[in-house]
Amino acid sequence: MTTGVRRRMGVEERRRQLIGVALDLFCRRSPEDVSIDEIAAAAGISRPLVYHYFPGKLSLYEAALQRAADDLAERFAEPCQGPLGARLLRMTGRFFDFVDEHGPGFTALMRGGPAGSPATGALAESVRQAAYEQILAHLGTAQPSARLELVVRSWVSLAESTALLWLDGRRIPRGDLERQLVHGFGALVAVGAAYDKGDEGMAELFHRLLTDEPADGPFGQVAGRLTALVPSVP
Amino acid sequence: MTTGVRRRMGVEERRRQLIGVALDLFCRRSPEDVSIDEIAAAAGISRPLVYHYFPGKLSLYEAALQRAADDLAERFAEPCQGPLGARLLRMTGRFFDFVDEHGPGFTALMRGGPAGSPATGALAESVRQAAYEQILAHLGTAQPSARLELVVRSWVSLAESTALLWLDGRRIPRGDLERQLVHGFGALVAVGAAYDKGDEGMAELFHRLLTDEPADGPFGQVAGRLTALVPSVP
Repeated sequence: MTTGVRRRMGVEERRRQLIGVALDLFCRRSPEDVSIDEIAAAAGISRPLVYHYFPGKLSLYEAALQRAADDLAERFAEPCQGPLGARLLRMTGRFFDFVDEHGPGFTALMRGGPAGSPATGALAESVRQAAYEQILAHLGTAQPSARLELVVRSWVSLAESTALLWLDGRRIPRGDLERQLVHGFGALVAVGAAYDKGDEGMAELFHRLLTDEPADGPFGQVAGRLTALVPSVP
Repeated sequence: MTTGVRRRMGVEERRRQLIGVALDLFCRRSPEDVSIDEIAAAAGISRPLVYHYFPGKLSLYEAALQRAADDLAERFAEPCQGPLGARLLRMTGRFFDFVDEHGPGFTALMRGGPAGSPATGALAESVRQAAYEQILAHLGTAQPSARLELVVRSWVSLAESTALLWLDGRRIPRGDLERQLVHGFGALVAVGAAYDKGDEGMAELFHRLLTDEPADGPFGQVAGRLTALVPSVP
């Protein structure tokens, strides 16, 4: 039942290999269309041996999603240096890299889907939380007001739904969408600032975006593009 | 086993009553914490009789979510008359009425949760689609460009996630959030218009918001508030 190759792999190494093989298959096709037989064939081992490492498809699926979630959360890491718009744009770009590479896997991770479970719901929540905390770090705020928290969490959700919609046909250039999302962040901050009671940090943040951001960064660019649109109003 | 009262209720009538009782319980507490025994007690019938009408808790849960989804979708209906901002604000207000009345039920409907199933995922999708189609009707566009479709669907998703976040503590006044969301729609349209290649309908829509909306409507108000913020930049 065992070959020399198989014996040389330790338990953790074999588990890692199976997770990698499964994640690759789950990211190319819808997870419910991937069978344990295929995973076994792609890993070059027997079906019973797969079950030796994972009690069932759901546990392998959850382990693969956990790896995808860890990978995604790592992409949010960005040095707290330079203009904020450029930082957000780089984070958004790496987020879309992930979405681009892991299409069906990303959809499965964030939407649950037919193979969804409470564990996958918690994983999606952990990715959203990682993105939220990273952005707060870039805003230099550990204790956000309720209004700022809502703007940042709403934007994370906007990025997620934009990515899911984009995957369905990819009809808008990725680069456009990444910039639109970063502009959307500025727009949501502006709208939140219009409601700031004076102690919620939104107006200060809006001022920072208006005054500290370079004209050739994403926040400067959208201001320029909008100004160009407004005079053409009849 | 049967009483005079029970005999007088027809099958459909009894099913409707059970759905109403279940929805009421699911909307006050998390659905997984509601037992069939409680539903039976609230309906004044025996536990076996509940199973006579619904094969199990999941089917009763799905029927209750279906009723909630129908109720929610109906609230998007709004006459295509008057300024667009005021229409969106009324729709958003009725949406928040629903969210306010059905807290845990709304969360269960949109997030799936532990009692989630493929059927509930499809129901949530049908509610999002109903909102999307209603808004397109108000924009007077049956055939939106990919960019406009993305803006409208993103905004529907923004409204959904804002409502879910608001339910967790209700720390921001509801009226503020409803206005912020409608302003957010204008902001996302503005950002989309900045990327319009000239034939995507976004620039025209942005011009309509700028020129046709009254100063005391939501779109006029946010412009006023933002203008008031900008001069105070050092």
